[in-house]
Amino acid sequence: MGKKNTLKIIPLGGLGEVGKNMMVYEYGENILVVDAGIMFPENDMLGIDYIIPDFEYLRDKKHLVRGIVITHGHEDHIGAIHHLLEHVSAPVYATNLTRGLIQVKLERQGMLDKVNLRMLQADDNIQIGPFQVEPFHVCHSIPDSVGLGITTPAGLIVHVSDFKLDHTPVDGWPTDYAKLADFSKRGVKLLLSDSTNSERPGWTPSEQVIGPALDKVFEEAPGRIILASFASLVSRMQQVADACVKHNRRLAFVGTSMVDNAKIARELGYLKVPEETLVTIDQALQIKSKKKIALMCTGTQGEPSSIIGRLSTGTNRHFDIHAGDTIVLSSHPIPGNEESVSRTINRLFRRGANVIHDGIAPIHVSGHASQEEQKLLLNLVRPRYFIPIHGELRQLKHHAYLARQVGVSEENITVIENGQVVELSNGQINVTERIPGDYVFVDGASIGEINWDVMREREKLARSGIFLIDLNVDKFTGRLMHDPEIITRGFVSDEEAERLVPEARKRIMDVVNGGGLDREHDIVSAVRAYLYNETKRRPMVFVTLSKT
Amino acid sequence: MGKKNTLKIIPLGGLGEVGKNMMVYEYGENILVVDAGIMFPENDMLGIDYIIPDFEYLRDKKHLVRGIVITHGHEDHIGAIHHLLEHVSAPVYATNLTRGLIQVKLERQGMLDKVNLRMLQADDNIQIGPFQVEPFHVCHSIPDSVGLGITTPAGLIVHVSDFKLDHTPVDGWPTDYAKLADFSKRGVKLLLSDSTNSERPGWTPSEQVIGPALDKVFEEAPGRIILASFASLVSRMQQVADACVKHNRRLAFVGTSMVDNAKIARELGYLKVPEETLVTIDQALQIKSKKKIALMCTGTQGEPSSIIGRLSTGTNRHFDIHAGDTIVLSSHPIPGNEESVSRTINRLFRRGANVIHDGIAPIHVSGHASQEEQKLLLNLVRPRYFIPIHGELRQLKHHAYLARQVGVSEENITVIENGQVVELSNGQINVTERIPGDYVFVDGASIGEINWDVMREREKLARSGIFLIDLNVDKFTGRLMHDPEIITRGFVSDEEAERLVPEARKRIMDVVNGGGLDREHDIVSAVRAYLYNETKRRPMVFVTLSKT
Repeated sequence: MGKKNTLKIIPLGGLGEVGKNMMVYEYGENILVVDAGIMFPENDMLGIDYIIPDFEYLRDKKHLVRGIVITHGHEDHIGAIHHLLEHVSAPVYATNLTRGLIQVKLERQGMLDKVNLRMLQADDNIQIGPFQVEPFHVCHSIPDSVGLGITTPAGLIVHVSDFKLDHTPVDGWPTDYAKLADFSKRGVKLLLSDSTNSERPGWTPSEQVIGPALDKVFEEAPGRIILASFASLVSRMQQVADACVKHNRRLAFVGTSMVDNAKIARELGYLKVPEETLVTIDQALQIKSKKKIALMCTGTQGEPSSIIGRLSTGTNRHFDIHAGDTIVLSSHPIPGNEESVSRTINRLFRRGANVIHDGIAPIHVSGHASQEEQKLLLNLVRPRYFIPIHGELRQLKHHAYLARQVGVSEENITVIENGQVVELSNGQINVTERIPGDYVFVDGASIGEINWDVMREREKLARSGIFLIDLNVDKFTGRLMHDPEIITRGFVSDEEAERLVPEARKRIMDVVNGGGLDREHDIVSAVRAYLYNETKRRPMVFVTLSKT
Repeated sequence: MGKKNTLKIIPLGGLGEVGKNMMVYEYGENILVVDAGIMFPENDMLGIDYIIPDFEYLRDKKHLVRGIVITHGHEDHIGAIHHLLEHVSAPVYATNLTRGLIQVKLERQGMLDKVNLRMLQADDNIQIGPFQVEPFHVCHSIPDSVGLGITTPAGLIVHVSDFKLDHTPVDGWPTDYAKLADFSKRGVKLLLSDSTNSERPGWTPSEQVIGPALDKVFEEAPGRIILASFASLVSRMQQVADACVKHNRRLAFVGTSMVDNAKIARELGYLKVPEETLVTIDQALQIKSKKKIALMCTGTQGEPSSIIGRLSTGTNRHFDIHAGDTIVLSSHPIPGNEESVSRTINRLFRRGANVIHDGIAPIHVSGHASQEEQKLLLNLVRPRYFIPIHGELRQLKHHAYLARQVGVSEENITVIENGQVVELSNGQINVTERIPGDYVFVDGASIGEINWDVMREREKLARSGIFLIDLNVDKFTGRLMHDPEIITRGFVSDEEAERLVPEARKRIMDVVNGGGLDREHDIVSAVRAYLYNETKRRPMVFVTLSKT
């Protein structure tokens, strides 16, 4: 239950990124959860759909959870909410747009009725158990994002999730510097803040730079414009809509998540598109003049099943790429996706489209603070202690280095990883135990049942394929009832298999006839040795043996 | 055989990168090959060791090959030489260092005696069949690199492989502008040049900027310095050696390729390290003062089997990372490797090392020309026709755009892909047929026998694993002789398998008892449906069936 007067701080989930998907604050018999997001699998996580935080710790203490506060509406902060709510029933607090996006998600899961979804506003001051929570506005690439002042019995904590210090954001609402200064005046015990861009010098460009870049694209595009972005980048949708109005193009959102999110963002007033600009995809495809059409869809990461992915391979059912189309990838590849993004770009070029990406035009800016912003935040808040979050170890270490540069003393900076528990009590900070706090694989209907052992087997299967041997022997004579049956997959081409299989059969029969029948191991060894000798590869060899 | 007076130009191999690994020039009954390199597989090329150009075209015309000219000693230009020489016996021409590196490679393959390896020097003028070849010096990240002037009966071709216009290169030998101007004066029919960085504005920084950055690292490192780079980046070895001399550290090269390449580069005078600076790894590990030690090894791409990879996971046999070690990754991740590089950096931090990479310090610069250099080359050479090479389609398209900007007319620019044949005759350029010219997989002993069908099977195996069913039935009664045997791999965890297998067995027996024995297909369907229903996943299901 934790010692008296002790605040526990625990980052959970998020692949290597610490506290990216979930943070837990625990005081006595009370837990406050911040965010509940998902991550997409890395390249060697074979067959995995997505990843959620390991919240075993919360399942064991579910009766202590007083509330779940969501900082903003991106997938890596809301995507796991339905998984969490299956185990933990506590009120969910979110700002207007974030709440709308969560509703869309819960509705799809048929869970909307069962969830206590409460409204939060910047400048609110709400009590959740012993936690006095003061959300304050921050800029990010989605409107209605908040950071949190959390007054606890152990002191005032400032929790800054994804943010940037954009002086000219799309929605005209800059980060609330006054609130940060106010916290500073009251004395901040601990700051936790976003480290994503801690290796990037300078100041992240304002979202405003995208406007002129889009203008240029809209002026020069000889035909349709197809813009790709994330479905939750509502600010980007607004910028595209503005360009459509200015350049007199009709705009259609394409794909379920894009359409649903645009709908809720419009309903709630976060996305302003004139009625006459917005059309459905069917209407857009009817328009004769290609220079009047703009489509907005997902698929910036080269995902083969996304609309851009399907367009690049000519497998989109609804419409195809035409020569003269201009594709705008308004995004930056997530680390690990560079290869598939690049391949997609090449394929789109091959189909006659022109492709504009952030490597050649400023049609995307990061939603995260760079070094100078991170330093300004530290100086505005002037915390006693600092824990860098939202980054891999390399970024956290660099954020810690920046904090030392602006005067936070080394012993007051704590770099932790997911599942490491930090305790704050009597003005002291300590790293204590480590709990399961990493990630859990979601694969089909399995949540957490797939582990790294299974992943290693998949990797082995993938490396050189399989070689199956079925044997049937007479239990009295010990003789084979028929020739060994052999199946291979992912090992060699069919022609090569035709060459290898007869000799492999012979080797098997030699072992069996040599009295090695009971020694399946010998059969496997003989086959492995033969195959390795011939191919310098090691497929997984399986023997099934029936005695009759 | 090609029409009379026609020069054929054919780029081969190199994944998406056009002509990166090999270019073919063919005139009448004469073929000149430029470069013979390898590429490393992309993330979805499961189990593949490396990739070589598909030179089927050359195998069919091997008697026509008059010579193979190598532009420089990097793996993507020399790595496939032994594969090519197994099919084509022609003299190989290379500059001194390049020839040394090729010798190391051929020696390892036991092929050195059989190859006619001739020396080439910048400013030579040699006749190879109807091709008059004039190599000229270019800067790149390895010394002794050359571009080629090739006077053919169809006109003067300038072939510029990997290059940059570095005014202060490590070896003090800038790109030969005078030769380029001389070609220009003589009238260049066609320029082919390196497009790698065509999306990068400005001018690639000189190798010289690395010196001060290394100095800073050497001054500040509290313990050992472990520098990682490619084994063929001889210029980088020189810079590290210079820093060791200046800061009084002993230097050991670690790993076979690093040691071999350093040895040959020293012997040939391209790497200057004082005798007293150079030590073996064993000697280095004996040195008491950690501030006297520098090690140089491979592994900048996060390869698990490289020295840096093994150090990051604590599995290097020879030595381990200590707290206080400084690791310098003097490189940039190759697209597709970002994830594994990042993971490696995190692991090294976790072991207490400090990691310096090109994201936070200028300890690496590109070896390839950026836009301003590419434009300068175009303006120096002033070719009639231009074919961008050494880049994926996206980079080629951008290089073509730059060429239009400097005044090459659109109809004189030809963007082609690997295997596309361009013909130059009577002053006209035409894209003609397409031949097999992509890449072939090398996997163990197989060269080209593994195809994308096998790859797709591997991908399927990896996605959800396998489910094997072995059945044995009495051929008279049609009854099962024993319960179905089931093996799974990469599908579910063992606990989950224990839950699923009994019910799957029951479903199989239902089909068999329902008379479905001969219909293996029905068994597979029933099992697939059951497994999908339970897990929302589709493992590959195999049935082996014996009747006795």
